[in-house]
Amino acid sequence: MKIILIGASGTLGQAIGEQLSARHQIVRAGRGGADVQVDITDFASVQRMYRQVGAFDAVACAAGNVHFGSLGETTPEQFGIGLKDKLMGQVNLVIAGQHQISDGGSFTLISGILSQEPIRSGSSASMVNAALDAFVGAAAIELPRGVRINSVSPTVFVESMALYGPYFSGFKPVPVADAALAFVKSVEGAQTGKTYRVG
Amino acid sequence: MKIILIGASGTLGQAIGEQLSARHQIVRAGRGGADVQVDITDFASVQRMYRQVGAFDAVACAAGNVHFGSLGETTPEQFGIGLKDKLMGQVNLVIAGQHQISDGGSFTLISGILSQEPIRSGSSASMVNAALDAFVGAAAIELPRGVRINSVSPTVFVESMALYGPYFSGFKPVPVADAALAFVKSVEGAQTGKTYRVG
Repeated sequence: MKIILIGASGTLGQAIGEQLSARHQIVRAGRGGADVQVDITDFASVQRMYRQVGAFDAVACAAGNVHFGSLGETTPEQFGIGLKDKLMGQVNLVIAGQHQISDGGSFTLISGILSQEPIRSGSSASMVNAALDAFVGAAAIELPRGVRINSVSPTVFVESMALYGPYFSGFKPVPVADAALAFVKSVEGAQTGKTYRVG
Repeated sequence: MKIILIGASGTLGQAIGEQLSARHQIVRAGRGGADVQVDITDFASVQRMYRQVGAFDAVACAAGNVHFGSLGETTPEQFGIGLKDKLMGQVNLVIAGQHQISDGGSFTLISGILSQEPIRSGSSASMVNAALDAFVGAAAIELPRGVRINSVSPTVFVESMALYGPYFSGFKPVPVADAALAFVKSVEGAQTGKTYRVG
C-alpha cells in the first residue's frame, strides 16, 4: 500500500513509520523536513498535498495540537486552537481525500484518552478527542467505495512522561509502539467506524 | 432560583420554560424577542448578557445550530458552523459565566443522540454533540464552588418530526417535554459531569 503518514517526524509518527515501512510505501508528510509539506489546518494545503501525492491507499495521522489550561482561564481563542488543529485538521484530511483515496482505502486519525477520562486543564483535549471519535463513527457510514475510517485513542506515552507526566497523575503510560500497532490494525485490518483504545 | 434560559423561544426552550417557571424566576435570553438579547457565538455578547442579568443561579441552554449535509459535499466552513454555534456558543456560556454564577449553581447544555447513533448527513452533529458531552465531563471536575454542569442528549422530538423525520428514520421520537424534564433534573438535582440521555 501507499500510505500517507502525517506528523511523520513526531514521537508517534516515527513509531508508526517504523512499523508500517517494512511492508508498505510510506509518504512522510508534515510541516517541514518530510517528503511532502502540509499544514493540516489549511484546507488548501491539504488539497495541494493530495495533488502532489497522487493515488494513495491510506492516511495515518499522528498530528494535532490542543491547548492545555485551566477551565477558569482558558479563552475561546485557546479552545479554538484544538478545534482548528487537532479536530478540523484531521477532518480536512478526510473531506479533502475521500474522493481520491483508493477503493477500500482507510483513514486513521489520532484522538486520545481524555475523551473518556478528563484531567485538570484538559477540557479542550477532552472535547476534541471525543469529537474525533464521534466523527469517525459518523463518517464511516457515509464514506463510499469501501473506504474505511478509524481513530486510535491512546493514554499518555512512556516517551512523553517527562513532558506530560504531571498532568496524567495515576495514568499507566504505554509505549508509543503500542499506539503504532493500533494504527497497523486499522490500516491493515477491515474494521471501520472504530475507536481503538490503547492503554 | 434565577435561571437564564437561552434559546427560550424555540420548541425546546419553551418546554423548559413551562416546567421551570412554576418554581423559579426565568430570564429568557435569545437572538431576539426575549428578556435579554444574546448571540452565543459572540463571546462579547455573552459577557454583555451576564453583566445585564447580574447574579444568577443556573443557565439552561436550548440553543445551537449545526449544518446537516452529506460527508461527500460538506466543506470545512460548513463544519465550522456547528463548532462556532452549538459547540463554542455553549462553551462561551460556561467560560464567561463560571465566575459570576452562584455557589452551587449549574450549567445545563444541549447535545443530542447523534453522538452515539450516527445518521447520514449528520457527521457535523455527531462531532459537536460528542464534544459537548465530553466538555461537560471535563468542565465538571474543574468548576469551583460546587458549580455543576451537565448536558441533555435527546433523540428527535415528536414536535420536530415534520422537519427532521426523514433524517431520523427508525428513531422513536420523544415529546420535547421529556427533554425539558431532564433539564429540570439537572437544574434542581445534584449531579455533575453527567449526560442525561432522553429517548
